[in-house]
Amino acid sequence: MLARLRRVEGQVRGIERMVDDDRYCIDVLTQISAIQAALDKVALGLLDGHARHCMHEGASDGRGEEMATEMMAAVGRLMKRG
Amino acid sequence: MLARLRRVEGQVRGIERMVDDDRYCIDVLTQISAIQAALDKVALGLLDGHARHCMHEGASDGRGEEMATEMMAAVGRLMKRG
Amino acid sequence: MLARLRRVEGQVRGIERMVDDDRYCIDVLTQISAIQAALDKVALGLLDGHARHCMHEGASDGRGEEMATEMMAAVGRLMKRG
Amino acid sequence: MLARLRRVEGQVRGIERMVDDDRYCIDVLTQISAIQAALDKVALGLLDGHARHCMHEGASDGRGEEMATEMMAAVGRLMKRG
Repeated sequence: MLARLRRVEGQVRGIERMVDDDRYCIDVLTQISAIQAALDKVALGLLDGHARHCMHEGASDGRGEEMATEMMAAVGRLMKRG
Repeated sequence: MLARLRRVEGQVRGIERMVDDDRYCIDVLTQISAIQAALDKVALGLLDGHARHCMHEGASDGRGEEMATEMMAAVGRLMKRG
Repeated sequence: MLARLRRVEGQVRGIERMVDDDRYCIDVLTQISAIQAALDKVALGLLDGHARHCMHEGASDGRGEEMATEMMAAVGRLMKRG
Repeated sequence: MLARLRRVEGQVRGIERMVDDDRYCIDVLTQISAIQAALDKVALGLLDGHARHCMHEGASDGRGEEMATEMMAAVGRLMKRG
């Protein structure tokens, strides 16, 4: 997870350089799409962990419903992107 | 544009810290959605610039069709996120 | 759920008429975005039901892991839209 | 375009039947993602037509700027889905 995020950080810095160097906008957009895809993967990994571990815990201490509600709100934000 | 990208870079670093500190996954997901929204804004700004300036230039040197095709491919990638 | 889907069906028919009447493309695009938003709501409703009911059932008959995996694959498809 | 929209209409009716028959929610979600992808293709087709034809026309009667603004707003709505 952290390794993936550090790679995303590097990709964002790469885009800053591309903008600085006045690179062709379509190439910058392709890089932005690649970052969005990478962030989607990080998000899915977190959601998966949430669904499995947190909800199990939540179920045992009666917070299952609340956690499912939070998870759906997070999925909704990811689908609309913010 | 560059200022916005530097802010995104800072947000990514913020998420790395959150993951490092083992923060609640839903809060991390909220931050990821915020970054996605910020990147979408950067992408829309670039597309807008492309549609206006590059296409005008392209029209004058006969590359208009090619540039429209490239732009649509970029929009398609942004809609599917990579 | 069904009422919402029937409304979506009506919206799609409305777009067919708009295309048939050669309406301004931007207006058609606005309608398409509205349908996408409506479908996202239906999808979130289904996911929410899945997370709550199906997973509870799944947990009791040992299919919880499998159902979580299926759910994450579905979220991934929704985020990438197909 | 119209043929594609009629197919989308048929797909929405198919989902209504699936919900009516109480089919497994993950299968319904897969179908919703397929419709989203089909609508994205219709939207990209319309945007492409807009970028090529309408903007050419717009340029000749001085509405190019306005049309580019409208197009970017439409792309933004498609990226956020509504």
